[in-house]
Amino acid sequence: RVFKIASIPGDGIGTEITSAAIEVLQKLAFIEGKFSFEFNHFDWSSENYVKRGWYMPEDGMDQLKKNDAIYFGAVGWPNVPDHISLWGLILPIRNSLNQYVNVRPTRILRGITPPLAKCGPKDLDWVIVRENSEGEYAGHGGTTHGHSSHAVATEVSIFTRVGIERIMRFAFETAKSRPRRKLTMVTKSNAQRHGMVLWDSVFAEVAKEYPDVQWDKMLVDAMTVRMTLQPQTLDTIVATNLHADILSDLAAALSGSIGIAPSSNLDPTRQNPSMFEPIHGSAPDIAGKGIANPVGAFWSAAEMVRWLGMEEAADALMKAIENVTEAGIRTKDLHGSSDTKAVTGAVCKELESV
Amino acid sequence: RVFKIASIPGDGIGTEITSAAIEVLQKLAFIEGKFSFEFNHFDWSSENYVKRGWYMPEDGMDQLKKNDAIYFGAVGWPNVPDHISLWGLILPIRNSLNQYVNVRPTRILRGITPPLAKCGPKDLDWVIVRENSEGEYAGHGGTTHGHSSHAVATEVSIFTRVGIERIMRFAFETAKSRPRRKLTMVTKSNAQRHGMVLWDSVFAEVAKEYPDVQWDKMLVDAMTVRMTLQPQTLDTIVATNLHADILSDLAAALSGSIGIAPSSNLDPTRQNPSMFEPIHGSAPDIAGKGIANPVGAFWSAAEMVRWLGMEEAADALMKAIENVTEAGIRTKDLHGSSDTKAVTGAVCKELESV
Ligand SMILES: CC(C)[C@H](C(=O)O)[C@@H](O)C(=O)O
Ligand SMILES: CC(C)[C@H](C(=O)O)[C@@H](O)C(=O)O
Repeated sequence: RVFKIASIPGDGIGTEITSAAIEVLQKLAFIEGKFSFEFNHFDWSSENYVKRGWYMPEDGMDQLKKNDAIYFGAVGWPNVPDHISLWGLILPIRNSLNQYVNVRPTRILRGITPPLAKCGPKDLDWVIVRENSEGEYAGHGGTTHGHSSHAVATEVSIFTRVGIERIMRFAFETAKSRPRRKLTMVTKSNAQRHGMVLWDSVFAEVAKEYPDVQWDKMLVDAMTVRMTLQPQTLDTIVATNLHADILSDLAAALSGSIGIAPSSNLDPTRQNPSMFEPIHGSAPDIAGKGIANPVGAFWSAAEMVRWLGMEEAADALMKAIENVTEAGIRTKDLHGSSDTKAVTGAVCKELESV
Repeated sequence: RVFKIASIPGDGIGTEITSAAIEVLQKLAFIEGKFSFEFNHFDWSSENYVKRGWYMPEDGMDQLKKNDAIYFGAVGWPNVPDHISLWGLILPIRNSLNQYVNVRPTRILRGITPPLAKCGPKDLDWVIVRENSEGEYAGHGGTTHGHSSHAVATEVSIFTRVGIERIMRFAFETAKSRPRRKLTMVTKSNAQRHGMVLWDSVFAEVAKEYPDVQWDKMLVDAMTVRMTLQPQTLDTIVATNLHADILSDLAAALSGSIGIAPSSNLDPTRQNPSMFEPIHGSAPDIAGKGIANPVGAFWSAAEMVRWLGMEEAADALMKAIENVTEAGIRTKDLHGSSDTKAVTGAVCKELESV
């Protein structure tokens, strides 16, 4: 079987880690021998935005829809205000392709020493389920009297029962599929008394359908404390678009580096292609130097392979990645001295034997 | 001089740590001999809300205004929905008394081992300046079709130029008063393109007035990574109401426990009393057992004493607190075996000699 993959390298280290991921995916397909990838490259970037005035062409979504999945690097560059670049590329894709779930697993890969003194590999193994279509990212709001001393601006978060119900159901299913069957729901309903209260009540309803999942609730601020001081008490976590954005970066840091963490933007109905991207950004400070950590990109690639139905190949890729981290072939953010190329080469080599 | 202090113990461990703090404050005044405290106790709690139907009486704010400062324990109890209790007590006080700044210092107290393996006492010494009057805590929004399958709820964050400008100015002044003269401004303007963009632009304007302060900007998600992996690069931090709420809990965890962290709700114009409270909550799980950590309450008391102009007494109290943490007289959250009473007694005793 041939899988069509749209690749959008984007900006900065996004381009470096995307080509590394493609190299690894091609090698994986070659070795497994049962499938292959056909990559369609899209040069949608901030550099091209400055030249052309747009990130995606008018038929951009239609072009993406012709693919089985989308592989995304990173977007954002100092030459374009961040809210322009993100609303020009990544956020519209998530929205238009109904990718209402963002799954962010975190665990301590073999060989990696996490920053917490008392946290071993068994103490931190989480999946964060992020609502990916509404909430704080609805984009509503505006500014009045913008250039005056009495300027007022609003950000309007929108929560719908449909949106909450489907993310809760996905979260419960995820929790149910894992050995511990444990779900922690995050909220800030003490201060945010409208949308977050609806969030709470829909959660309570959906919970009734899953008597076999053990659940609890946390306020988002206290959640950072629990993640830091009692990581072993957590398993599956569900949170709003913004809360999960923040918590997933913290989770990545607690597992060693933002450079290793993957994410899957899923349309669970499978009517649109899903999109896979590392959670890190374009990192202007290290871009172009060939030293970006490609592990988050590889892990995202493994999640894509899994979503496309090739469980064994995904497992093989994860095993190869961890053989490499364990062997000490790591980039600087993981206290190693290897560059992107060395890590990529090592993973390709491991694929031959796993 | 006699200072009138309104005390609001509130719920759960709030009552336990407030009486501990009062004991310590009385002892401090007795020893210093130059001032005394007159406490006015207010029994505004969730228990009484259930009996009376209100948290504060109608003239509650006027009663508070007659005091020089307010000492607050904690509010929130399982018998009242959290959004009712908080909007019934703590949030209206912050708003009505123009306490538009919330200052949250964090550092590693003597004798405490923080959870990060590579973080010594010199690596973590921050002040978080939290916007305390608007943003995500404006309380605006609502719910439509609440009981139907097509329910929609909104949370409206409101940012004003006046509100942003005054918090930025306070943050720059704070940064300027500290040895490193370093300010990190937190935002999420890449995803939140209205209010957060105003936040960014007012920051840029105010920054021009402080050429002697070195500043940088972080996105809130990436900020959690920097706090965890590069704590030594941070000093003063300014963030919105919600972002700083989350980051300050994380900061407390990284410094050892949520039980030690203080906060000051300030009206910098000094037209209203300011309010001092530990950042932890009412902790129903340990309430009534006499084991709550009173250190956050004592540190908050020290901040109150400092705000009232008694620098030396505040320093003496901080020294006494740290002599006690260093001597190993600590509660369970700090891996000790002492109870609230033992820690309180030890601090009172230390006050005699510092
Ligand atoms: C780039 C940005 C819009 C994005 C987000 O906030 O969703 C990123 O931080 C992420 O976590 O995927
Ligand atoms: C109790 C709650 C409303 C409060 C807040 O969110 O401000 C608390 O978390 C805090 O940090 O002071």
